[in-house]
Amino acid sequence: MSAERLVAVYRLRATRESVAARAEALALEQSVELPRAALRDERVRAEVAGRVAAIDERGEDLYEARVELACETVGDDAGQLLNMLFGNSSLQPDVALVDVQLPRSLATAFGGPRFGVVGLRALAGVQGRPLAASALKPQGLDAASLAALAATFAEAGIDVIKDDHGLADQRAAPFAVRVAAVTRALDAVAQRTGRRAVYAPSLTGDAGALARQLELARAAGVSMVMLAPMVSGVSMLSALARGSGMALLAHPSMAGCTAIAAPVLLGTLFRLFGADATIFPAAGGRFAAAGGEGPRIAAAAAAALHGLEPTMPVPAGGLSLERVPEVRARYGIDAMLLAGGDLIGAADVAARTRAFVEALT
Amino acid sequence: MSAERLVAVYRLRATRESVAARAEALALEQSVELPRAALRDERVRAEVAGRVAAIDERGEDLYEARVELACETVGDDAGQLLNMLFGNSSLQPDVALVDVQLPRSLATAFGGPRFGVVGLRALAGVQGRPLAASALKPQGLDAASLAALAATFAEAGIDVIKDDHGLADQRAAPFAVRVAAVTRALDAVAQRTGRRAVYAPSLTGDAGALARQLELARAAGVSMVMLAPMVSGVSMLSALARGSGMALLAHPSMAGCTAIAAPVLLGTLFRLFGADATIFPAAGGRFAAAGGEGPRIAAAAAAALHGLEPTMPVPAGGLSLERVPEVRARYGIDAMLLAGGDLIGAADVAARTRAFVEALT
Repeated sequence: MSAERLVAVYRLRATRESVAARAEALALEQSVELPRAALRDERVRAEVAGRVAAIDERGEDLYEARVELACETVGDDAGQLLNMLFGNSSLQPDVALVDVQLPRSLATAFGGPRFGVVGLRALAGVQGRPLAASALKPQGLDAASLAALAATFAEAGIDVIKDDHGLADQRAAPFAVRVAAVTRALDAVAQRTGRRAVYAPSLTGDAGALARQLELARAAGVSMVMLAPMVSGVSMLSALARGSGMALLAHPSMAGCTAIAAPVLLGTLFRLFGADATIFPAAGGRFAAAGGEGPRIAAAAAAALHGLEPTMPVPAGGLSLERVPEVRARYGIDAMLLAGGDLIGAADVAARTRAFVEALT
Repeated sequence: MSAERLVAVYRLRATRESVAARAEALALEQSVELPRAALRDERVRAEVAGRVAAIDERGEDLYEARVELACETVGDDAGQLLNMLFGNSSLQPDVALVDVQLPRSLATAFGGPRFGVVGLRALAGVQGRPLAASALKPQGLDAASLAALAATFAEAGIDVIKDDHGLADQRAAPFAVRVAAVTRALDAVAQRTGRRAVYAPSLTGDAGALARQLELARAAGVSMVMLAPMVSGVSMLSALARGSGMALLAHPSMAGCTAIAAPVLLGTLFRLFGADATIFPAAGGRFAAAGGEGPRIAAAAAAALHGLEPTMPVPAGGLSLERVPEVRARYGIDAMLLAGGDLIGAADVAARTRAFVEALT
């Protein structure tokens, strides 16, 4: 057990002459942070220090190094896993983290999604088609206006309604007031239509604030929440997965650290830590340049991983009605398509939203 | 009050023809996340939506856009300030955040360092020279070995001893056992020498684990702790500054997101949120390419900021004894120089450490 390892694959810019030393330095940086000669303890040298398992050439002065890191350096903390995978190396411009291979013990320790695709479908009451999602915005509206927008979305058939990540606990629509207003509005729609949209408010703030928001959400009957793990900390995502009982929607805010490949961070790692759905920029929207990785993120979110539930991919970011067929074809039915501005900006929000939902059914 | 603004300065890659539209899109992305035409609410349009104040050419197809963001979108949460400054834009490859200008109200709301340079000097009992710091490592050693290393450092005159950021709550040296062993060892040295080194254990884990570690540290008489804000969340740093009573040492793990300039993140923002000292790669060490920004980080940590205490700069990352005079000259006396591997890897750790301390006195 003590010698169990995870594998991190790093892309390195180096020359043929320097790459072996660079990979060795990386393996030490991401573990003991000392030169190997300074490791006087035999167990640390043999079982704890990172080691280079392979180096493969990938282009001119471009290599991939497989580094084996001891699982015991992680404990069962998500933040510490990030530390060990890329903490210090994030400060070095010649290296990127491009893949992670996790042993079963780590997968089990974190547990992955508690709902996953099957659980989200059950929550939303949707089978056999992608889920339709939208966002409450702009920030600055009062709670009543946001609730009215939520009601419009729900009437038009939207399955999941999330807060814009710009909605926090600001004066214009404080969390408690907003969550109460939106859930009441959705309850009223459900009484008329017989179908209840899922509302995922955004949790923000320090640990105390976030815990209070979670309790407010629970008291209001909320069953799904959104979190930006790279803002609130990946350990918070993991703690919510372990203890909240809520379905978890991960937002990519601050995740655009280009030196961790998006499929690794938004796909594999967010899934490992418990995200039931993961939002990412879909190709062609206003995050066009970042969007090319969408299919690889979705693949990582669904790949075999020691029996962990898959995470539902949520292509978003400037998704327009016209592009729904293309995006639907790309991601298949086990996805949640998120359109915000395209619906809210329409002259007839309800009609545009109905058209969006119909395009998915 | 409601219309008060902070200023974010973004560097944009764009053509002369496209830059105005790109800057406008950025101002909307970092605020309301809707096209301006979709903003039906007059107050949101006037007071909440971001606005472009100026665009300056900085090179071929390179511009700086000054964007004014409404303070009301931040509330008083550090994570939400990151969201508003760069959350979504971190996903866009053509933009970097290069400066932030904060109004007094935000500076006051967060409060900055509670100890700052003056408080750290008092804590360490050091006047008139830079502080000497080192790190306990490698991870994988047991608590007794780490405590013995701490004693060696303290006997040799080190002022501040921090955990390596790879030390978390792992089996080899669990937090509770490690903190007890190290503080006992430092107490014993203090009884002999009359001088007590400051020990800064590293806090990690989810909110519950971190709170338990904080209590353990407090019970052991610890007065300074280390946190990696980009792993644990900047709101955690802010919460510790507001409530822990501890001096706070910020570690840059995962902060190498190249699209936020290091002086902004490690200097201005970590200081705003309450870091009393901020670690960064010093030029010439093993983070050579990242190290050129050190002087600008130190400048941001000490710049006038509505009366906030300055944050002590901590150049680190492969600092060797030979380079102490140069680094000392670069950062002046109000700095803490951190040498780890150079001391631990020496044949005679005590002698090398004494030489390091002497080079600073």
